[in-house]
Amino acid sequence: MSMNSFGHLFRVTTWGESHGPALGATVDGCPPGVPIEPEMLQIWLDKRRPGQNKNMTQRNEPDAVKILSGVFEGQSTGTPIQLMIENTDQRSRDYGDISETFRPGHADITYWQKYGIRDYRGGGRSSARETASRVAAGGVAREAIKAIAPGVEIKGYMVAMGEMEIDRSQFDWDAIDQNDFWIPQGSEIAQDWENYLQDLRKSHDSVGAIVEVVARGVPAGIGAPVYNKLDTDLAAAMMSINAVKGVEIGEGMSAARLRGTDNADEIFMGANGPEYGSNHAGGILGGISTGQDLVVRFAVKPTSSILSPRRSIRKDGTPIEVITKGRHDPCVGIRAVPVGEAMMACVVLDHLLLHRGQVGANRGHIG
Amino acid sequence: MSMNSFGHLFRVTTWGESHGPALGATVDGCPPGVPIEPEMLQIWLDKRRPGQNKNMTQRNEPDAVKILSGVFEGQSTGTPIQLMIENTDQRSRDYGDISETFRPGHADITYWQKYGIRDYRGGGRSSARETASRVAAGGVAREAIKAIAPGVEIKGYMVAMGEMEIDRSQFDWDAIDQNDFWIPQGSEIAQDWENYLQDLRKSHDSVGAIVEVVARGVPAGIGAPVYNKLDTDLAAAMMSINAVKGVEIGEGMSAARLRGTDNADEIFMGANGPEYGSNHAGGILGGISTGQDLVVRFAVKPTSSILSPRRSIRKDGTPIEVITKGRHDPCVGIRAVPVGEAMMACVVLDHLLLHRGQVGANRGHIG
Amino acid sequence: MSMNSFGHLFRVTTWGESHGPALGATVDGCPPGVPIEPEMLQIWLDKRRPGQNKNMTQRNEPDAVKILSGVFEGQSTGTPIQLMIENTDQRSRDYGDISETFRPGHADITYWQKYGIRDYRGGGRSSARETASRVAAGGVAREAIKAIAPGVEIKGYMVAMGEMEIDRSQFDWDAIDQNDFWIPQGSEIAQDWENYLQDLRKSHDSVGAIVEVVARGVPAGIGAPVYNKLDTDLAAAMMSINAVKGVEIGEGMSAARLRGTDNADEIFMGANGPEYGSNHAGGILGGISTGQDLVVRFAVKPTSSILSPRRSIRKDGTPIEVITKGRHDPCVGIRAVPVGEAMMACVVLDHLLLHRGQVGANRGHIG
Amino acid sequence: MSMNSFGHLFRVTTWGESHGPALGATVDGCPPGVPIEPEMLQIWLDKRRPGQNKNMTQRNEPDAVKILSGVFEGQSTGTPIQLMIENTDQRSRDYGDISETFRPGHADITYWQKYGIRDYRGGGRSSARETASRVAAGGVAREAIKAIAPGVEIKGYMVAMGEMEIDRSQFDWDAIDQNDFWIPQGSEIAQDWENYLQDLRKSHDSVGAIVEVVARGVPAGIGAPVYNKLDTDLAAAMMSINAVKGVEIGEGMSAARLRGTDNADEIFMGANGPEYGSNHAGGILGGISTGQDLVVRFAVKPTSSILSPRRSIRKDGTPIEVITKGRHDPCVGIRAVPVGEAMMACVVLDHLLLHRGQVGANRGHIG
Repeated sequence: MSMNSFGHLFRVTTWGESHGPALGATVDGCPPGVPIEPEMLQIWLDKRRPGQNKNMTQRNEPDAVKILSGVFEGQSTGTPIQLMIENTDQRSRDYGDISETFRPGHADITYWQKYGIRDYRGGGRSSARETASRVAAGGVAREAIKAIAPGVEIKGYMVAMGEMEIDRSQFDWDAIDQNDFWIPQGSEIAQDWENYLQDLRKSHDSVGAIVEVVARGVPAGIGAPVYNKLDTDLAAAMMSINAVKGVEIGEGMSAARLRGTDNADEIFMGANGPEYGSNHAGGILGGISTGQDLVVRFAVKPTSSILSPRRSIRKDGTPIEVITKGRHDPCVGIRAVPVGEAMMACVVLDHLLLHRGQVGANRGHIG
Repeated sequence: MSMNSFGHLFRVTTWGESHGPALGATVDGCPPGVPIEPEMLQIWLDKRRPGQNKNMTQRNEPDAVKILSGVFEGQSTGTPIQLMIENTDQRSRDYGDISETFRPGHADITYWQKYGIRDYRGGGRSSARETASRVAAGGVAREAIKAIAPGVEIKGYMVAMGEMEIDRSQFDWDAIDQNDFWIPQGSEIAQDWENYLQDLRKSHDSVGAIVEVVARGVPAGIGAPVYNKLDTDLAAAMMSINAVKGVEIGEGMSAARLRGTDNADEIFMGANGPEYGSNHAGGILGGISTGQDLVVRFAVKPTSSILSPRRSIRKDGTPIEVITKGRHDPCVGIRAVPVGEAMMACVVLDHLLLHRGQVGANRGHIG
Repeated sequence: MSMNSFGHLFRVTTWGESHGPALGATVDGCPPGVPIEPEMLQIWLDKRRPGQNKNMTQRNEPDAVKILSGVFEGQSTGTPIQLMIENTDQRSRDYGDISETFRPGHADITYWQKYGIRDYRGGGRSSARETASRVAAGGVAREAIKAIAPGVEIKGYMVAMGEMEIDRSQFDWDAIDQNDFWIPQGSEIAQDWENYLQDLRKSHDSVGAIVEVVARGVPAGIGAPVYNKLDTDLAAAMMSINAVKGVEIGEGMSAARLRGTDNADEIFMGANGPEYGSNHAGGILGGISTGQDLVVRFAVKPTSSILSPRRSIRKDGTPIEVITKGRHDPCVGIRAVPVGEAMMACVVLDHLLLHRGQVGANRGHIG
Repeated sequence: MSMNSFGHLFRVTTWGESHGPALGATVDGCPPGVPIEPEMLQIWLDKRRPGQNKNMTQRNEPDAVKILSGVFEGQSTGTPIQLMIENTDQRSRDYGDISETFRPGHADITYWQKYGIRDYRGGGRSSARETASRVAAGGVAREAIKAIAPGVEIKGYMVAMGEMEIDRSQFDWDAIDQNDFWIPQGSEIAQDWENYLQDLRKSHDSVGAIVEVVARGVPAGIGAPVYNKLDTDLAAAMMSINAVKGVEIGEGMSAARLRGTDNADEIFMGANGPEYGSNHAGGILGGISTGQDLVVRFAVKPTSSILSPRRSIRKDGTPIEVITKGRHDPCVGIRAVPVGEAMMACVVLDHLLLHRGQVGANRGHIG
């Protein structure tokens, strides 16, 4: 029962602080024979890396991942895969003044209250930098999924950022990779988002966002009925990402406003099995996949590291106004996109493996 | 790694189908010396029980819980507590016609696709009846919390049902137990909700809802930083309840619209420790409790068991129109209130116990 | 992380005290579609049941197992199987005098020191009666193994009891079920064992024993390399049985006296794959099965419940001489035979399922 | 459910192959505030390191441990501690010829049968080199135990090696650290052992051994009653060490020959609580510690890597005679001593932490 692990058969344990020598992920349960090279993981780390564009913090780390174990001659062996990312650009002096103060909206105060000790340099373990480890592990999961369920495609994108919101009637799957916000819209819209964010940055403020992650081609029948449901595990995976405050499957919170006559996705017999008239369910019924797109959304709060002063206290209880200098994203939602994809990949792989252990192969034939 | 369990040190495994001889919960990890009598659990089961009022299904089961182990002379012994609820009013003939068809919005089809066999009587394991086991286990958790952290109070209430929504400016904590909807509003408002729901029932429809659960008096410092965060475990706990499609902590999905200057809860030094100017965080920072109210919300979809016909298929792939007869709630949100409370109690107790194992006692002094 | 559970994908949680209303096992992870009827489990419970012959305690309980969930129309559904055995012959007055004293060699004192409360009636949770739950769960495992790996045969037998020891040169597999001691020897030898045990009983004493359990036909390749090895899990499973003080795989403790030239089992190519010149390894290399017989042995200590007085203390620290009246086996090894078989069945099934989740199917071809 | 992890609240995951870039341990659940410096861990690694004396393999690696996370300013923070040991002396050409053959008594064949791929260089993951990671993690456990239960002392020693056996009447606790075999005997006896082992080496053979590990000063009341018993976890911990074939607690396998009148340790009231007339139980009753010395023994088989030819097969099924060249210990028992100590430390710490989570503090007063 590791507090720093997630997954059942595909189990990832992340370790490391933002300003220690390195951080990484211990990945256990990757099936043998999966082709894995550092470049296959690096592509996703590069997507998450700070300093890529002007909407992200300017901390320029190469975030180069090393594979220390579990891969032999380019293939996984079935033993633990250790992924390490060295911290090369630490500049810890930026953060030294927070050792005695608690930044509002940060975990500074709760880490102190729980442990009585904290690595205050850059947030330590609570830094968003921890998510680099997740992205590396997600890269392994993606390769394993390819080997086991070749048709699966996983993609994340932003759907809202502060007052900005995508227009679903103009949804463009191919545009996602063409802009800095990973939005499924044309470049003009992306420019609007950029202007909005730059204004925020200039006003020393930050803003929240909503990210949606979709997995297409997941076979029907993976998941579990009551506690380790596919939706339960997805909710936990997304909620475990820094700054996430809400998680939705399919219709999500809006399901509360629907009527039963609208919400139930009608079923039809298609050429290759059951098809559905709609996907309010987000691809999951009773914790088990239907074969439709898995659709998960999560909201990230605005980063609390802002240049505007907020009232707080010091460790000794005296009041202080806190301004967080340093390099911080005005919207962490952008970088949360590849993190959400990584978590989706880990959960889908885990349940593909679990299904084989639980059942062996899909059992119920239809038609 | 039981797929039918949740919790770490306080671990609950539920078992049983809606129309089998019995269902229940195996509760492991309750500390010794906690006073437990069947009546202490029954009070919560009675709150959840169908047939209490006309807004619930008219299945009249006493839902009497029996304690088969782990309690000796009225006190927990530290060994597993087996809670059993016998199914006395099964009327399984109501459900016999669904053995070959899949109800839209139900787990019928995914159970079949996964397992190739399902107990179709009343939904079997996927029935909301499973939540009775959770409520019984939650009763044990409540008693253990009393012994360990006496000031904690846990209460759930509905905040929305279809088009109805509570008025937070008129929030009345004491009114919650005075009406059939567990809403924090006066009886006139409750009457409006009732009229709305009766109209829906008459139109052979159902509706979704949002439930909010609050835990007051939870000490600062419980939780964990990265994966088994307090908010992660709460999200998983709530998402695991039947029909839930979204979970929010504190500000929830709305955090996406906030700016950093609004969202960060400012900190002040109070007489008994840190105090906060607001609670956008829902009582959790970095996965660890702040000492503020824990605030969780979840949305339940409208029940799919309705008298209006929906298109679907039979196991052989042929089309069919499905009408679900039988006794079904037009809004499962009402009964989800005590279930959400039970899940909150289980998670809070679990993290209280974990904190002792992780740290021993709160370590970081402030002031 | 339930303290009362074992297994990974096939996970068994036992519950119940010797003198409570019932005890049983919550069995999670049984694959769907396995034929299960109470009689299939009862046969093993009858083998373990006290009162069968004069070498066992005369507590006459039918030990009838009821299946409360997870089985529908005679087949497992993939959901938790709840097995309940009601306690019908409790006679708790026999044990009342031990509430304030600690029996030497019993868990009375350590339960008290840990929990500050104990169900002293008949040993409560520490009673050998707990193993009835294991035997019932093992019956489920046996049926699931039949479905997944049809050729597997599991059999236990005694190899030593005090000064008595089997003659391996006269090993008779078919004789095991023909005598009250489950020894692989002819009936004359069994008569010698019986005389020996009756003499012990008359002298108000008890004696230890060694049980060996063999699994034949287990496919090569199940297990795991480092921690949850097949041998590790078998060692834990057997050591968890009441009164067990030692566990051996293959050569066991005697491996210490062997030389490398003797110990390494030579490999030859047979008609159906690799064959071995010997089985010092007990069917396991590096935590993974070789396809040879799995061979596990465990030693049980003599029961501490004897009519001869032993010195001890009361809860208040004053000295006392303890004589344990009541119905107790002079050698618990006899009843440990079906318990060891049940644990073997659970571990083998668990690793068969795990292998599918880890790898999918055997991967490495030889020849 | 990581297959490469052990422990409940103090959870260690080892990773790495003998000839990859590095190996190590991810240590989760170390309490905060424990002083940890690399030198505190290095002392134990040096004890285990090959090449120290002529009874060990002459592979000269410094085995220097690096702490990559979880320690800040010399103290644990409560977050995962990553321990890395780089492989500097790999000489992989020694092992190249085994890629197509299976060494008898090795895991070569089972890894292949399970995974269809193996890192054959030096045994890969099945190499005894994996135990360096355990020893490093055990060093962390030792420091945490000091902070939580200061009086605990853990020591291992050899009690048998082939035909050599210690004389318990001459047991000398202080002599253990004075000789190359960690035997509790004078230097003359150690010289006999050395002569015996050198003769074996010259005859191109190897031999097994028995190691005993004792933990003194462990408080009464830690452990659990049925499955994750203290003795169960110790048995699993020791059986998981490479080459171990048997594990004993207290009287061990010999308990089979004892009578109840001899075996039950009589209890007396001492000045500081209960005392016992003997310790057949090895410090554990019903899975829970008595406060007496915890006594565990395990047998290691003779190393299979010997210069004498043994018959085997190639991957293609053709016969071959295998001689294992390279640097191998004639008795791996010597190096197993610090490994056994490390496992004992991990299990004791884990149950000390668990006890706090289960119960809070010892509950039952005696006297």
